[in-house]
Amino acid sequence: MFFDNASTTQIDKTIIADFEKLNNELFYNPGGLYAKGRGVASFIEDCRNSIKDSIGASASDSFIFTGSATEANNMALMGTVKKHTRKILVSMGEHPSVYNVGVELKNRGFNVEFIPLEKDGTVSAKMFEKYMTEDTDIVSIMYTSNETGAINDIATLVEIAKDINPKVIFHCDAVQGVGKFDINVEDLGVDMLTMSAHKIHGMKGVGGLYVKKNIQLKPLILGGGQEGGLRSGTENTLGIYSMSRALEIATENLKSNSEYVLSLKTRLIDILEDSGLVYVIHSKDNASPYVLSVSFIGCRAETILNMLSDRGVMVSNGSACSSKKSGNRILEAMGCPKDEIESNIRISFSKNNTIEEIENMATILINVVKEYLAKVR
Amino acid sequence: MFFDNASTTQIDKTIIADFEKLNNELFYNPGGLYAKGRGVASFIEDCRNSIKDSIGASASDSFIFTGSATEANNMALMGTVKKHTRKILVSMGEHPSVYNVGVELKNRGFNVEFIPLEKDGTVSAKMFEKYMTEDTDIVSIMYTSNETGAINDIATLVEIAKDINPKVIFHCDAVQGVGKFDINVEDLGVDMLTMSAHKIHGMKGVGGLYVKKNIQLKPLILGGGQEGGLRSGTENTLGIYSMSRALEIATENLKSNSEYVLSLKTRLIDILEDSGLVYVIHSKDNASPYVLSVSFIGCRAETILNMLSDRGVMVSNGSACSSKKSGNRILEAMGCPKDEIESNIRISFSKNNTIEEIENMATILINVVKEYLAKVR
Repeated sequence: MFFDNASTTQIDKTIIADFEKLNNELFYNPGGLYAKGRGVASFIEDCRNSIKDSIGASASDSFIFTGSATEANNMALMGTVKKHTRKILVSMGEHPSVYNVGVELKNRGFNVEFIPLEKDGTVSAKMFEKYMTEDTDIVSIMYTSNETGAINDIATLVEIAKDINPKVIFHCDAVQGVGKFDINVEDLGVDMLTMSAHKIHGMKGVGGLYVKKNIQLKPLILGGGQEGGLRSGTENTLGIYSMSRALEIATENLKSNSEYVLSLKTRLIDILEDSGLVYVIHSKDNASPYVLSVSFIGCRAETILNMLSDRGVMVSNGSACSSKKSGNRILEAMGCPKDEIESNIRISFSKNNTIEEIENMATILINVVKEYLAKVR
Repeated sequence: MFFDNASTTQIDKTIIADFEKLNNELFYNPGGLYAKGRGVASFIEDCRNSIKDSIGASASDSFIFTGSATEANNMALMGTVKKHTRKILVSMGEHPSVYNVGVELKNRGFNVEFIPLEKDGTVSAKMFEKYMTEDTDIVSIMYTSNETGAINDIATLVEIAKDINPKVIFHCDAVQGVGKFDINVEDLGVDMLTMSAHKIHGMKGVGGLYVKKNIQLKPLILGGGQEGGLRSGTENTLGIYSMSRALEIATENLKSNSEYVLSLKTRLIDILEDSGLVYVIHSKDNASPYVLSVSFIGCRAETILNMLSDRGVMVSNGSACSSKKSGNRILEAMGCPKDEIESNIRISFSKNNTIEEIENMATILINVVKEYLAKVR
């Protein structure tokens, strides 16, 4: 039973079923000066336009395909920072692909400040106002936390930012948002927005960066000048298709998926409530239905994860999506005590999960926690 | 009829046939702390080791999966350059993903020199000796030209380089070499080597960089710390598999493929010789069997390409693989006259081409050139 959907998801089976045909008909080089090459280029533009439509981008805005959302996040910051950039704001809750770039820029001598999180995992308007200054040139705040599911009110934060410095560039990592929420870049007011394919049943190895017109961006990767010179490398046609199609499928059923996934999460919480266990849910009143961050006080998360794995349940602890590093930074920034951090696990859902899976998983989880506590006590 | 195989190739059908199974069994996050995640991580290590074995890397060397060979080339230069790097040598024949990085580093104030090419498209030992100095810290010279097929004697160039500065870092872009020639990093003596999946019937959107142990490399993309911290972003399991498997398939039949492709190229040259047309073949005596760079004097390449496309023949002009830019830089560096440059087309082969295709294509090509010349005269 797979409940680590915030880290990755299975490619939609209808998408993978199209790969063979695409490989036969559209394997040609989209840069090729022959009709079939131009055909692939046009196919890629169709995919790009479909994504742009989905997120409410206007025709004159750009959407750049990258090799991952991580690359898109790196590009958003590294590509807009200039010698004379005065101040950069990054939230404490950002994914490592934004946070670590912030740290790197700080190490290079830039004035980078990290905005603290509220207890519920969000960046509040009040806190943001303390950090946002006239000399802030770049801001990066995520749409939804990959760790706790906490949802930031990006539209309000952008409004505050632009009121203080109308020229500020506002980037939003919406990897956990696109395809799950009704995201409209115009309504949000963001200048750049990152998305991933493999978090919404597309392929791994492809991401994208929305870039509002007039935003000056430098490329991170130089070469043959693909993607309008902003991201060189032969276009990944299958990956690009998978992202575009996955977003179409997700968008068609956005509301019903969200309601369905919320019903899964609610069912799980209800079962936990009846279990008699001592636990803390993070970002309880303000989280994405797709993520449940929960700490079973007194349990070591790694051990729980292993016990769950042995019984066929896959969950993660915090940012396992981002490999070996511990997920403590976010919960620490939220002011969680040590016992909550050490015992924190992340259960993340997909429309492919069933209510039966939830019930089976809940039973296993409760047993595992009880067994663990019985052993250590 | 597809003769633009140096720009991209069709994914091997046996590889794409495996994608569905892989998506069912190995879609999990390789960073996940559960058995199936560890299973994917171990699968990726198997792919990595298979590639390392193929290119003769030792166990302590690294091989880093990237989102493209372009990214790997960028990483090789950007990741090894340091504040105190004294001199960087890049050949005039490099792919834009190396050449343009050289230009960028020069613009940033580094001492970057571009080594001229011989008439046959290679970097000669004699010319290299003129440029290679004790203070040269980084060298990047490609294995085989994507434009002319010219093959450089990398082992000799490395020997010269290391004799002059034993600490020099020697990078080789072997995108047109790996899977086509018997490439052994130990024998070549290189410190870094770039490969691509989609040039050898793997997927687009995946490349890799061999890095000899003890070479200090900085990451280009920061984040969750995947690939030993050197290339963050969730691992592209399907793409990685496709590269590893494509190289295995290519390696199994390396010699017979090469002989077969040479027979295709030779047949084409024989037909051209009997055609009575006036043409020049570049890197004639020293080119990869996989590439034929030919100029039909008096013809405009773009028009020929369009006419060929209309009749179902796909070839390119020079570096069409690298998008809109003209391929003049390389031929200019070889000292080719203007009429050869303007009329240059690149015909590139794959083991999937047949002798019948060659003969049909040759007939069409000869007719097109004759028609063109009849019109303009």
